Amino acid sequence: MSIITLLSDFGLQDSYVAEMKAVILSIDRNAILVDITHEIPKYSIRSGAFALASAAPYFPKGTVHLAVVDPGVGSRRKPIVVETRKSLYVGPDNGLLMLAANTEGISRVFEITQKKFLRDMLSSTFHGRDIFSPIAAHLSKGVSAKKVGRVLKTYCQPPFVSAHIRHNGINCEVLHVDSFGNIVTNIRPKDLSQAGISVRSRVQFENRKFSFLKTYSDVPKGSLVGLVGSHGFFEIAANQENAARLLRLNVGSRLRLNVTC
Amino acid sequence: MSIITLLSDFGLQDSYVAEMKAVILSIDRNAILVDITHEIPKYSIRSGAFALASAAPYFPKGTVHLAVVDPGVGSRRKPIVVETRKSLYVGPDNGLLMLAANTEGISRVFEITQKKFLRDMLSSTFHGRDIFSPIAAHLSKGVSAKKVGRVLKTYCQPPFVSAHIRHNGINCEVLHVDSFGNIVTNIRPKDLSQAGISVRSRVQFENRKFSFLKTYSDVPKGSLVGLVGSHGFFEIAANQENAARLLRLNVGSRLRLNVTC
Amino acid sequence: MSIITLLSDFGLQDSYVAEMKAVILSIDRNAILVDITHEIPKYSIRSGAFALASAAPYFPKGTVHLAVVDPGVGSRRKPIVVETRKSLYVGPDNGLLMLAANTEGISRVFEITQKKFLRDMLSSTFHGRDIFSPIAAHLSKGVSAKKVGRVLKTYCQPPFVSAHIRHNGINCEVLHVDSFGNIVTNIRPKDLSQAGISVRSRVQFENRKFSFLKTYSDVPKGSLVGLVGSHGFFEIAANQENAARLLRLNVGSRLRLNVTC
Repeated sequence: MSIITLLSDFGLQDSYVAEMKAVILSIDRNAILVDITHEIPKYSIRSGAFALASAAPYFPKGTVHLAVVDPGVGSRRKPIVVETRKSLYVGPDNGLLMLAANTEGISRVFEITQKKFLRDMLSSTFHGRDIFSPIAAHLSKGVSAKKVGRVLKTYCQPPFVSAHIRHNGINCEVLHVDSFGNIVTNIRPKDLSQAGISVRSRVQFENRKFSFLKTYSDVPKGSLVGLVGSHGFFEIAANQENAARLLRLNVGSRLRLNVTC
Repeated sequence: MSIITLLSDFGLQDSYVAEMKAVILSIDRNAILVDITHEIPKYSIRSGAFALASAAPYFPKGTVHLAVVDPGVGSRRKPIVVETRKSLYVGPDNGLLMLAANTEGISRVFEITQKKFLRDMLSSTFHGRDIFSPIAAHLSKGVSAKKVGRVLKTYCQPPFVSAHIRHNGINCEVLHVDSFGNIVTNIRPKDLSQAGISVRSRVQFENRKFSFLKTYSDVPKGSLVGLVGSHGFFEIAANQENAARLLRLNVGSRLRLNVTC
Repeated sequence: MSIITLLSDFGLQDSYVAEMKAVILSIDRNAILVDITHEIPKYSIRSGAFALASAAPYFPKGTVHLAVVDPGVGSRRKPIVVETRKSLYVGPDNGLLMLAANTEGISRVFEITQKKFLRDMLSSTFHGRDIFSPIAAHLSKGVSAKKVGRVLKTYCQPPFVSAHIRHNGINCEVLHVDSFGNIVTNIRPKDLSQAGISVRSRVQFENRKFSFLKTYSDVPKGSLVGLVGSHGFFEIAANQENAARLLRLNVGSRLRLNVTC
């Protein structure tokens, strides 16, 4: 019994996700299906990549990850399978799979061309169901990734945004705002130590100062706190409040974090 | 291991769906449960019927479909099982099951009367849990549909709305607006060819003209396009935009599509 | 194959729920995972307790319930396992588990201290994934509850709000408003009979009178009706309308129900 995860921007109101699961179970009834999320903002490849990269580390080796945030469906963007040291990723060649796959270490990337693994009738609008789902199911049943098509030498890599250490601070970007309003930046723990920020340091964003601590409840209700969240990134949060709304930051916002005395 | 799908207007906030699954798993722990959607607009039998009809074709033969959009629960509307050539449908006799079942070809319809398959305590407000779930589980375990009760000769058929070919156009209706804002009409491909519309034809709705093409990305971002969606119906969409908002159309809206030169 | 239910206030947009499932399946791939809901209002221990207590009775004996509504994560509140006559509950010691566990009859409560069952890296912000999920998976695989840590003599009990019978009426409180707008009070059937309210009685809330009946459709569309809902509590509902909006009542609202002639 192997695990197939599903991620998309389809939402849960329409029957799209169920159609993908129906196709998968028609091929591999023993697959264990786990939804990562289907509430990715429409067409937001970046948010999809972040969610996939957040969840993937916790799944066991051999998991097949099927992800569909695919504004270019029906155009020339290629359907691909990414083979890493740990997992298989199935989806469009638009960067969606790469944040997670890079972390695990990419072995090979294949363009899906082998028609015998696909649905007989291919719609031009729903490759999630007609191409990616049957491929994921065949991989989960043990078909080797190299059977799906030819090796791809060049493929889309997302703008891999790193935080930049600058004099007395870090220039960074908001990777994600979670449903609690916590602001996940692209600052990694190693960036913090490079910038001389350690636990109990005071930092400053615009005119607001707050401390780098361990957990949300280290500060009074409503107060700002910086911490390394469970995803391994530096977060700005407000205990039991919505920090993103408080600071008016969104996914993609660029900001400068200053070290204070 | 057989598949049971679940569809309802219960939403995902309350524990209703989990209660149905608990009842099913108490009877058939090997059932594979797949949610179609639980976000059907409250009491909207038509939207539920559309979602069920959209998903059902992709499930394998022998699937049991449990659907509950049931404004008349506790009144005299009958609980039924519909046996088709491919599947079994369990739910209220209010038309919800019929769009999907008609497509597969109805063999027999049974009124659920056999109490031994139901929960001992029947609430008057939640037949989804107390009647439909145990019946679905027993059917999935192999109980024959004819064991649940007597054959029903007359049962509720939904207003089966067909598109109408008229001089130089089609009178049709909006069956569904998906979460991308794509407008699904009740026009089938055969209606299009009858009306002389083929790929690359120009069509007109009110004062807006657009082309009948293959896929969303065949037009620039924001432009209207007509296409046959993955469900087999003619859709009006706008590439990466919300067509329903743009054209102010809703489920149930009637409209006329004109063929232009 | 044993059942593990999951309940949280994480929502379905982020990957948190998937991370918990990944951890569980890494330990017990045979577990049957059933979501109760992840749409509990943020930090609302009371709503979480109500949803868990609503769903738990329908699950079979031996089910492991994992629930995380945990505003105090990372503080000193203890992680616990509650063993009842029927089930095992895993979550924070903040009252969340107690409404359900009290109903089943608590045998013992254990503080989770045994590190060998937890993830190697414990985040301070996500005990749902790092503590509760691996414990739930080990319990589901057959590890005895007493192996997770020491017996806890005192633990948090939620303010167990009971309805109070008063002269000619009942003082009660809104436990829950469901997604239909039905108002679930903490009045149990026995409170009704004690207050002399039986089916067809007329009751009064503020200046509105309505009847205690069997089901929503016993009254015309839009009219108020009192009934014992499928959860075993007295509800105030409006047939096909939102009663909570109509009466401006919310979770936690206190109200007096008068018996009229």
